[in-house]
Amino acid sequence: MESFQLLSEHACFGGVQRCYSHHSSTTGLPMRFSVFLPAQASATRLPALFYLAGLTCTEETFMVKAGAQRVAAELGMILVAPDTSPRGAGGDGESNDWDFGVGAGFYVDATNPPWSASYNMYSYVLELYQLVSAQLPVNPAHIGIFGHSMGGHGALVLALRNPDLFRSVSAFAPICAPSRCPWGRKAFAGYLGSDERNWQQYDASALMASRHIPFPGGILIDQGLADKFLDDQLLPEAFEQACGAAHQPLRLRRHPGYDHGYFFISTFIEDHIRFHAAQAVGNSIN
Amino acid sequence: MESFQLLSEHACFGGVQRCYSHHSSTTGLPMRFSVFLPAQASATRLPALFYLAGLTCTEETFMVKAGAQRVAAELGMILVAPDTSPRGAGGDGESNDWDFGVGAGFYVDATNPPWSASYNMYSYVLELYQLVSAQLPVNPAHIGIFGHSMGGHGALVLALRNPDLFRSVSAFAPICAPSRCPWGRKAFAGYLGSDERNWQQYDASALMASRHIPFPGGILIDQGLADKFLDDQLLPEAFEQACGAAHQPLRLRRHPGYDHGYFFISTFIEDHIRFHAAQAVGNSIN
Repeated sequence: MESFQLLSEHACFGGVQRCYSHHSSTTGLPMRFSVFLPAQASATRLPALFYLAGLTCTEETFMVKAGAQRVAAELGMILVAPDTSPRGAGGDGESNDWDFGVGAGFYVDATNPPWSASYNMYSYVLELYQLVSAQLPVNPAHIGIFGHSMGGHGALVLALRNPDLFRSVSAFAPICAPSRCPWGRKAFAGYLGSDERNWQQYDASALMASRHIPFPGGILIDQGLADKFLDDQLLPEAFEQACGAAHQPLRLRRHPGYDHGYFFISTFIEDHIRFHAAQAVGNSIN
Repeated sequence: MESFQLLSEHACFGGVQRCYSHHSSTTGLPMRFSVFLPAQASATRLPALFYLAGLTCTEETFMVKAGAQRVAAELGMILVAPDTSPRGAGGDGESNDWDFGVGAGFYVDATNPPWSASYNMYSYVLELYQLVSAQLPVNPAHIGIFGHSMGGHGALVLALRNPDLFRSVSAFAPICAPSRCPWGRKAFAGYLGSDERNWQQYDASALMASRHIPFPGGILIDQGLADKFLDDQLLPEAFEQACGAAHQPLRLRRHPGYDHGYFFISTFIEDHIRFHAAQAVGNSIN
């Protein structure tokens, strides 16, 4: 197993904020991710929380803008934030669009060339999960996942398909039904081809319809009602309906006035981290 | 009085995060600044806290990276962050150096041409103080100031020269004696000319030597001991000595492991906001 290369380190809330690079066998490229290790990590294995970011973001965005470290330090939780796509894969036009290619991996394993060579961000997150569990003081029995927008989609899909790996899941303004919105349809057609049957494994609302209470402690979603992407792209009502049909407890909070950005995320980040911490010790929101 | 032009607005911790533009008579140019207005601002005039940022930063940096809004929302404080220089003044070479010109106004009123036309950030902060007091729901009797690095220098200088305007002052890793460090000497020589007697009015350690307890409630400074600029550029011991001679209470906290960046600032931001809030109601740290 290749080890992580430390790129930067900053003291932060009594712990350390780090950026690592490593070779990924899934993407075939060097990948970056960032980690917050609270002080407690020097003494014991801790719960961890993976954060998947949205379109155009990097491994840095969440750690710089969300204000998550304060609560993670208090509760003794490790935070892990991967990048949002491979970088340097070199596919034709991969940097032409902000919503496809670089910064927009959509957490799928591409089957269409040239993307299929490197754009395997679904499996990459699982690769990173294994690497982090082996190389950082993480308690693998207590790993949660959350994310924002495209990353909220990624978090829901990864959790629903791997409830044995992820103990808890939440999201900020997730793309809840990518098969049915312009962002998702463009990405899925490009990465997966035109046969929509192959899209369903990456659509949280479709996946939920075939599950039975995968997260008995509940799923938490925050959504701003002044989010300009709400009506066309995010479709939380589709996921809400699917959860209802599957008897999956869902706390979908709709917040008047809040938009799609990190000022919204920072406002509610504490609730999410406490939600995951409570799940790690077996509590539920319902 | 020209009114502010609203450029952006985001809901944040129950209040609003805004960016404004306005014409400045001091710089002769349009200037941007950002404001956080907590929910309480819709009902009453609130204490305000000006934050001056460091080299290369803009009016956005603090609001995005410091995590200050949470505590400001709790305590009912308005946050105001100006830009770090004029933009578009057009002085020859103004964008060549990261530590002089654009993003590096150093909170002085330049006397050397061409800088003297627009690089008047000392007076600009006072202009903004008046404009904000008139146009936002600020209680002018309860305005504090703080800042980081170059902006920590600016906060100390503005407070020491205007203790009637600023009720409290604190700083993160401030440039404490700019007349004696490379950053300050380069900036002062460029903006003010070679006669060092003209520099003293912008040197917090020199200013403190001629004051007598301007802030009886104390001054708070946080400094990381892993800050790579500490030994050559920041010189907190010079300010400490000057405070001692002037009987000015100073809480200078030295933090092992912390560096010069916003992960350091975010770790201690809550202490600073609570410090200023306590000063606003008349408490002291000593």
